[in-house]
Amino acid sequence: MTYSDLSEQIFRKQSYLCIGLDTDIRKLPPHLLTESDPVFAFNKAIIDATANVAVAYKPNIAFYEAQGPRGWESLQRTLDYIPNECFTIADAKRGDIGNTSDLYARTFFDPNAAGLDFDSITVAPYMGQDSVMPFLKYDGKWVILLALTSNPGSADFQLLKTHGGPGTEHASQPIYEKVIRTAQSWVGPDSHERLMFVVGASQAHELTAIRQLAPKNFLLVPGVGAQGGSLAEVSRYGLTTGGGLLVNASRSILYASTGRDFASRAQSETKALQTEMAVCLAEHVGEITR
Amino acid sequence: MTYSDLSEQIFRKQSYLCIGLDTDIRKLPPHLLTESDPVFAFNKAIIDATANVAVAYKPNIAFYEAQGPRGWESLQRTLDYIPNECFTIADAKRGDIGNTSDLYARTFFDPNAAGLDFDSITVAPYMGQDSVMPFLKYDGKWVILLALTSNPGSADFQLLKTHGGPGTEHASQPIYEKVIRTAQSWVGPDSHERLMFVVGASQAHELTAIRQLAPKNFLLVPGVGAQGGSLAEVSRYGLTTGGGLLVNASRSILYASTGRDFASRAQSETKALQTEMAVCLAEHVGEITR
Repeated sequence: MTYSDLSEQIFRKQSYLCIGLDTDIRKLPPHLLTESDPVFAFNKAIIDATANVAVAYKPNIAFYEAQGPRGWESLQRTLDYIPNECFTIADAKRGDIGNTSDLYARTFFDPNAAGLDFDSITVAPYMGQDSVMPFLKYDGKWVILLALTSNPGSADFQLLKTHGGPGTEHASQPIYEKVIRTAQSWVGPDSHERLMFVVGASQAHELTAIRQLAPKNFLLVPGVGAQGGSLAEVSRYGLTTGGGLLVNASRSILYASTGRDFASRAQSETKALQTEMAVCLAEHVGEITR
Repeated sequence: MTYSDLSEQIFRKQSYLCIGLDTDIRKLPPHLLTESDPVFAFNKAIIDATANVAVAYKPNIAFYEAQGPRGWESLQRTLDYIPNECFTIADAKRGDIGNTSDLYARTFFDPNAAGLDFDSITVAPYMGQDSVMPFLKYDGKWVILLALTSNPGSADFQLLKTHGGPGTEHASQPIYEKVIRTAQSWVGPDSHERLMFVVGASQAHELTAIRQLAPKNFLLVPGVGAQGGSLAEVSRYGLTTGGGLLVNASRSILYASTGRDFASRAQSETKALQTEMAVCLAEHVGEITR
């Protein structure tokens, strides 16, 4: 999917909502457990209930891997079921030496390998350039690089200050800024067409600085909803004229109810978020150029 | 597996060789492709030929994931076939927020989840403490944390110098040193009983410094063999009285021949490495205390 396709979808749906399909078999409504593939049955109902207002779906691969081979089958069925207009994210946080990242890229991007054809994958930056670039060999596919995450451990390394060396332009910057700048340099001036960054919503006050570094790149923001970030804050600092945000919610939508009404309750939660997003788009993007 | 079990195995076999089961279906000897599970048939032959001198096996999960659900079945069969006395490493380089790392830990450590029961997993440090600790909840299981990897991209972030702040003991240290110190502090004074570090063999000159930081922790050293590191150098700086090293070789063993003699050629390569290791053990560990 191209940048402009994604942007167009956002303004058409008046939404930049990503739904995290972190489907935990231990939390499914009991009546689904008799289905042949309960995880897929749940995801299908969630997708049916939300695809008119969600612009992206993000299965976290851990939830599927933990089910072994049948989990991968649930993942394949789920991905095949997501409407083509929606952006798909393999939340896998992979990253290895070049020839191994090649294989991870095949896994998630080449339907002839593992049967999967995601639009994008989340990637961990620690191993550097040759661990990231293999994912960009696939035309039209995206890397979503971890920059500043929303969990407590983000302070351990991501916020450490680095020396730039004497006389350098950015003499002292946190690691996550260095990750953003460096990754942009790998991809080039139009990096926003292939590269997004993960930025945790609990760090909304850092969003202004990140927007200066990455004025056009999409930011994938987890942590709104169950993890407690503020959608209004994130939107104020993160929205751009192209949209520029994918705000993820998972548990607050998937497990809005554990009964037979789980899909309709998910739909209500989703619609409430979309309504708030439409207001934010009018307020912030309306002001800028549109 | 405990530290002392692993150490005992090393001195009994006179070997600290780990074999990387990076089994690429595109590189298998053609006569195996008619088997019902060619990847497992290959791994089984390699294990049969090498288990008397290898102390550890390390399947890189990317190679199995790229085959979809049947790849996970090959991985299960392979893991079940590895003799119990050998240490097993899921080379997965996972890491996510706490509740998701929990699921990755279940995947690789809880046989009732995905059918896998590895002794250890490689973990990426970028997301910090809560992304690493869930793997240590399982008794007897190990975390092998990426510190200084052997690929070109290791220079992008791992070697950046961080500020320690004025008056701090370690005022300026590369990120990978900070990762080692910080992770040790999470685990406690006996961190060497649960925590290893990945240190690339192409960085042999940094091993002395790393040994000072981590005098007892095992180091998993990839990059000897096809990637060109020197076994003698690594052994000189890395061996300890408990062994302290797992040196990995993959391609140089697996693909020593692409014909029907692949297993016997793998055996010869393995035996040659073990012979060199026995000499290193006598020279370096013999000298120290034994």
